[in-house]
Amino acid sequence: MNFSSKLIEEAVNEFAGLPGVGRKTALRFVLHLMKLSEEEAQKFGGTVIRLRKELKHCKTCHNVSDKELCDICSGHQRDHSTVCVVEDIRDVMAIENTQQYRGVYHVLGGIISPMDGIGPSDLNIETLVERVKGGEVKEVIMALSTTMEGDTTNFYIYKRLKDHKINVSTIARGIAIGDELEYADEVTLGRSIVNRTPYEKTLTAK
Amino acid sequence: MNFSSKLIEEAVNEFAGLPGVGRKTALRFVLHLMKLSEEEAQKFGGTVIRLRKELKHCKTCHNVSDKELCDICSGHQRDHSTVCVVEDIRDVMAIENTQQYRGVYHVLGGIISPMDGIGPSDLNIETLVERVKGGEVKEVIMALSTTMEGDTTNFYIYKRLKDHKINVSTIARGIAIGDELEYADEVTLGRSIVNRTPYEKTLTAK
Repeated sequence: MNFSSKLIEEAVNEFAGLPGVGRKTALRFVLHLMKLSEEEAQKFGGTVIRLRKELKHCKTCHNVSDKELCDICSGHQRDHSTVCVVEDIRDVMAIENTQQYRGVYHVLGGIISPMDGIGPSDLNIETLVERVKGGEVKEVIMALSTTMEGDTTNFYIYKRLKDHKINVSTIARGIAIGDELEYADEVTLGRSIVNRTPYEKTLTAK
Repeated sequence: MNFSSKLIEEAVNEFAGLPGVGRKTALRFVLHLMKLSEEEAQKFGGTVIRLRKELKHCKTCHNVSDKELCDICSGHQRDHSTVCVVEDIRDVMAIENTQQYRGVYHVLGGIISPMDGIGPSDLNIETLVERVKGGEVKEVIMALSTTMEGDTTNFYIYKRLKDHKINVSTIARGIAIGDELEYADEVTLGRSIVNRTPYEKTLTAK
């Protein structure tokens, strides 16, 4: 593409670096931004700069936060003996939105994926082991994707934690609510039968 | 959505204002930006701010440029007697990429659309009339979308220009190259027969 200005080309290149954004979409963004008022543009650009400068990772659970310790980790009403292990902060938000979980989190910052060159040492696994060693944790809930990478990570963490006297569980796999049985894949359907739930339990859940 | 930080929420709101971006996509962008180095984030944010500050519109054709007069309008090898009227700067880029056009442009900045409250006075039509009055222009090529709004704009501009001794033409409508006839819509196919081209002309075109 020929751009009529070097600056537009630069801006398109910046936006095309965002995940899932090609050069055509980037150009749409840039043309939109040009229509903003000077004040709005200043705010937009400033937010991007502040994002990198001011955001920290919680020193306990690695969730993003503007403080040393995130709101969840510093919350007195949370159950600090239950730790839910997730891949990234989007999963924290997703679980928080269910309003079904009162424990705390541990954000790995990724999953073990040899194909992408991500090994256990690239993730926040050591700090999880340290937290468990601390003695306060009684249960670790693994809430990772059901992919090969997720399973590998589950297994690795399970092996690292199994000598400590805690329970390690994974979130339930099964037929999603609203799904029809005949369209479910075999593995999910199979697992949902093997890991069936006592009927009374489904009554107490929301 | 619950965000673990006020700043993330602000950033998501900023990005969700971009065309075609929802809050989930905006969050993906924000998480990506957090992984940039401080220098890269500074550059990204700075580009957004500079975009609004430094970019001007060419005083002749209203194309964006970092100068008073854009490269096309100040180009000595361009044919300044032919003006191609387009809706926005993306169309200029698209036509420039064909490398088939050596004239200059006039960017309207939109099309007449009563539904969106855009009338002739909101567009750069007066300056086009002034350019034509100047006497250098011999032909105006209308290159707008084939929508009702495009047709209305074509007609309005044609009426404004018809008393001046210039040719007003529109770009050819017809079956796109590579398209199969049986899937073409009736209006396009009909027009392509009415406005058929002498065979020898198709040989000289690229």
